[in-house]
Amino acid sequence: MNRILLASTALVLSAGYAAAEVTVGGDARAGVVYSEGGGAVAAGGTPAQQAQVEQAITDLEAAVNAAQATINNPASTADQIETAALDLAEANAALVALRDELGDIIGSPGEGEFSFNSRIRISFSASGETDNGLQFGGSVRADNSEGGADGTAGSVFVSGAFGKLSFGDVDSGGKAAVGQVSGVGYTGLGDLNEITYISTPVDEAVLYEYAFGGATFYASIDQIGDDNDALSAGVSFGFGPATLALGYETDDVTGDHIIVGASAGFGDVTVKGVYGRLDSVADGDDDSDQYAVSLDFATGPTVLTAFVADQFGDDDDLNYGLGASYDLGGGASLKGGVAHNGQSGDDDDLVADFGVTMSF
Amino acid sequence: MNRILLASTALVLSAGYAAAEVTVGGDARAGVVYSEGGGAVAAGGTPAQQAQVEQAITDLEAAVNAAQATINNPASTADQIETAALDLAEANAALVALRDELGDIIGSPGEGEFSFNSRIRISFSASGETDNGLQFGGSVRADNSEGGADGTAGSVFVSGAFGKLSFGDVDSGGKAAVGQVSGVGYTGLGDLNEITYISTPVDEAVLYEYAFGGATFYASIDQIGDDNDALSAGVSFGFGPATLALGYETDDVTGDHIIVGASAGFGDVTVKGVYGRLDSVADGDDDSDQYAVSLDFATGPTVLTAFVADQFGDDDDLNYGLGASYDLGGGASLKGGVAHNGQSGDDDDLVADFGVTMSF
Amino acid sequence: MNRILLASTALVLSAGYAAAEVTVGGDARAGVVYSEGGGAVAAGGTPAQQAQVEQAITDLEAAVNAAQATINNPASTADQIETAALDLAEANAALVALRDELGDIIGSPGEGEFSFNSRIRISFSASGETDNGLQFGGSVRADNSEGGADGTAGSVFVSGAFGKLSFGDVDSGGKAAVGQVSGVGYTGLGDLNEITYISTPVDEAVLYEYAFGGATFYASIDQIGDDNDALSAGVSFGFGPATLALGYETDDVTGDHIIVGASAGFGDVTVKGVYGRLDSVADGDDDSDQYAVSLDFATGPTVLTAFVADQFGDDDDLNYGLGASYDLGGGASLKGGVAHNGQSGDDDDLVADFGVTMSF
Repeated sequence: MNRILLASTALVLSAGYAAAEVTVGGDARAGVVYSEGGGAVAAGGTPAQQAQVEQAITDLEAAVNAAQATINNPASTADQIETAALDLAEANAALVALRDELGDIIGSPGEGEFSFNSRIRISFSASGETDNGLQFGGSVRADNSEGGADGTAGSVFVSGAFGKLSFGDVDSGGKAAVGQVSGVGYTGLGDLNEITYISTPVDEAVLYEYAFGGATFYASIDQIGDDNDALSAGVSFGFGPATLALGYETDDVTGDHIIVGASAGFGDVTVKGVYGRLDSVADGDDDSDQYAVSLDFATGPTVLTAFVADQFGDDDDLNYGLGASYDLGGGASLKGGVAHNGQSGDDDDLVADFGVTMSF
Repeated sequence: MNRILLASTALVLSAGYAAAEVTVGGDARAGVVYSEGGGAVAAGGTPAQQAQVEQAITDLEAAVNAAQATINNPASTADQIETAALDLAEANAALVALRDELGDIIGSPGEGEFSFNSRIRISFSASGETDNGLQFGGSVRADNSEGGADGTAGSVFVSGAFGKLSFGDVDSGGKAAVGQVSGVGYTGLGDLNEITYISTPVDEAVLYEYAFGGATFYASIDQIGDDNDALSAGVSFGFGPATLALGYETDDVTGDHIIVGASAGFGDVTVKGVYGRLDSVADGDDDSDQYAVSLDFATGPTVLTAFVADQFGDDDDLNYGLGASYDLGGGASLKGGVAHNGQSGDDDDLVADFGVTMSF
Repeated sequence: MNRILLASTALVLSAGYAAAEVTVGGDARAGVVYSEGGGAVAAGGTPAQQAQVEQAITDLEAAVNAAQATINNPASTADQIETAALDLAEANAALVALRDELGDIIGSPGEGEFSFNSRIRISFSASGETDNGLQFGGSVRADNSEGGADGTAGSVFVSGAFGKLSFGDVDSGGKAAVGQVSGVGYTGLGDLNEITYISTPVDEAVLYEYAFGGATFYASIDQIGDDNDALSAGVSFGFGPATLALGYETDDVTGDHIIVGASAGFGDVTVKGVYGRLDSVADGDDDSDQYAVSLDFATGPTVLTAFVADQFGDDDDLNYGLGASYDLGGGASLKGGVAHNGQSGDDDDLVADFGVTMSF
């Protein structure tokens, strides 16, 4: 993306040039993550356990070699080859499982460990305009481009006076209208600030958006043609520095989910809140609710954020977190956060991170 | 790809600038597909069958948990761990198979179902010029870039007065010369208009092209060094609005395939036809032939297309289709089609689609 | 990447424009590779062996069909379905193994075979600058973009007066300082010229670089939080056409590795040498050493290269190679090489290649 500044007599006429094009951007982040409980990784094993697992791996490797020798032997019969192939496949699959286990025992972070965490992602945004003024295009990242080629990642849109229609990996109408409260950390720290939307489609889906006055309407349907159609709709209203939003989701397996959200700015402070109530279709399940609240305080290039969230499930323990970000300019920010995972069920469930985020 | 128009006194000198570069483009599509027979997806099962499969899944999950517990138990011996790992691997693989089956039973589209279908693909075209005027470069997409890195997707070329030499995922010489007749639908509807080229290499291959007067010669060879070398050659001649083409393909496993093709424009109408005859190497196989014919009628931004095709195999039932496309300008088109699959052997074998295609 | 030349009155002001951006480049190569020993591919089998393997495949396919029929049968019980799913998964895994074996028998290159070898790779380089003048960015390729998204491929950096800090798939400090001697061939011919760095991290790692006068310091640490932390450091000094470098690597599993390197230019000739000595932690292992020396002779656009290398292990047989490259201009070169693999243990271990390389 060459950027060229032209001075004085050179006149740049880019307005109205409607040829389709692709722009390349991206995002990156790098820093250190702390997980008090070591996350989902199993705790380290004992040396004796390690020795037994290593012995089992040695035995299975011998079985693999014996089976491979039988298959490779020109004198083997079809029956011997068939039996050896079954043994070989079994032993190879078992080896994969045991080597994973061994990695858990000897290579896993213990409790309270730090780890480096970085990533870089390249994103593509394609856009064009038809002769009669419809906009069209789509977006996908390099790392999920295979999903983009089969409709399960990225998205494709057509928009005009009728609104905007998007196909692909799109949000549900309810989520597009209400969204989430603010989170913390340069990695998001497991998105503990987020409530659960039941109808966020993972496969090919369609989202329709239409803005009218200060309101924007959303409606979505996930892939049709299977027995469980997920439908969703939502609307958001903007009133100066405040926004109100309402969403509804339904599918045959989970039930009906109603979500309300609001955000309001008071000078340097922004408050956001969402509340969701699920009427489950499962027998014996009581209705369930969830909520999340965040507060952002901006002072110059610094934003301080705090959140509390109670996801579906056990109401006894809340998720909460505190974070700060500092805008370095040019697309880079320093961010750090600390959060408590109320769902983990552990006592030692603090997660924290500190690093730099970049956008290109 | 910034596009900048410069007016008046600014002079743009881009001719002759030969530095190597990469341009980014892409394509996308979105719409709805109809399949009368539900494609290859199994028909839905009965509720009783579903219950039995779900019970088997529950039993296997218990077996997985028991095996995992044995592996994780510090008191387990190497023999117990080995046996548990074999059980675990077996049960996990069986669970994958059964969950697929369960998906077929409860989640599969029934007959006559519609489905959303979209995709977005990003493509890269690299080019440069040597000091003595040879052109070089290559192309690959983001979604098949891993294949591009090992020579099985995308392609790399060098061209000059000697012709053009391409390595990678290239067409056979016969296919490059003769090609296919027109198809229908925004998705191509399974490419039922296409004949089969036996030597279209799926792995690393090499294609040579040379244009002389109105003729273009093509020759290809797939990966050397294995026991089945596929060779192919072709030539196409252009006569004003008409083209004649001849192709030949051979490999040791399939046999010899001769293909002829022709296209001709008569005002708004373009007619294309291809015919292929295979002399099979398999004992007892009779020679086999295939053909396809298409007719395109263009009127303003609209093109109507019809095709008939008889692929190798059963001659009793033809593929045929009808479609229309409307050029929206800017790289977008509306397209729709309907086609009959003569090879499916079903009575209910209609496929249809309607959507928008985009190029960037 | 449009490149536009502006003449006369148009003034281009691109210096100091610090907005973050992504540039797209790439590399490609195409040619023919010769491997005297057929590489690691198994030698072809006998026709009788092929027939037995094909029979075993047929038997397993029958087992797959029978198991699938049981699973699909609405009258099957959960126990029957569970057993059939186990059989199905086993037979399918065995089929994969046997079909691989069959490919080895009937489709493998024999000894002394040639093969086509091409590839094209697209690379992205992102960069930006903060308001206070820190540089930041990262790089990744399209083909390893999934690794880039989880920190195991590509890298992300921040640099300034303090030096440069890189996260991701980075070199060890010792390797970054000392590097490798010159290799041959358009494919690199298996990198037989390279010595082994023990601490080149394959997972997320961090590398720090700092240049001061003619010296550059490097320090690295691979992913923290596992039980085997790999640490490394190095320094390189430049003296006009000569460079001296020293590196050190250590991890708990392998031991301590000290590497020294030097390169010097004498007119058209450049000589490079590296030497590494490992103090292994394994019981009974003697210390081990390795070295590599290369000589480049440049004459106009042609460079002739020769190398000798003795990697860890058997000292009886050396790797050696000879190659030439010719710069075609514009980013393209013709390259060819021939090399002997001293580690293969075979008598017939010559590898050679000839082709074109491109950079975009």
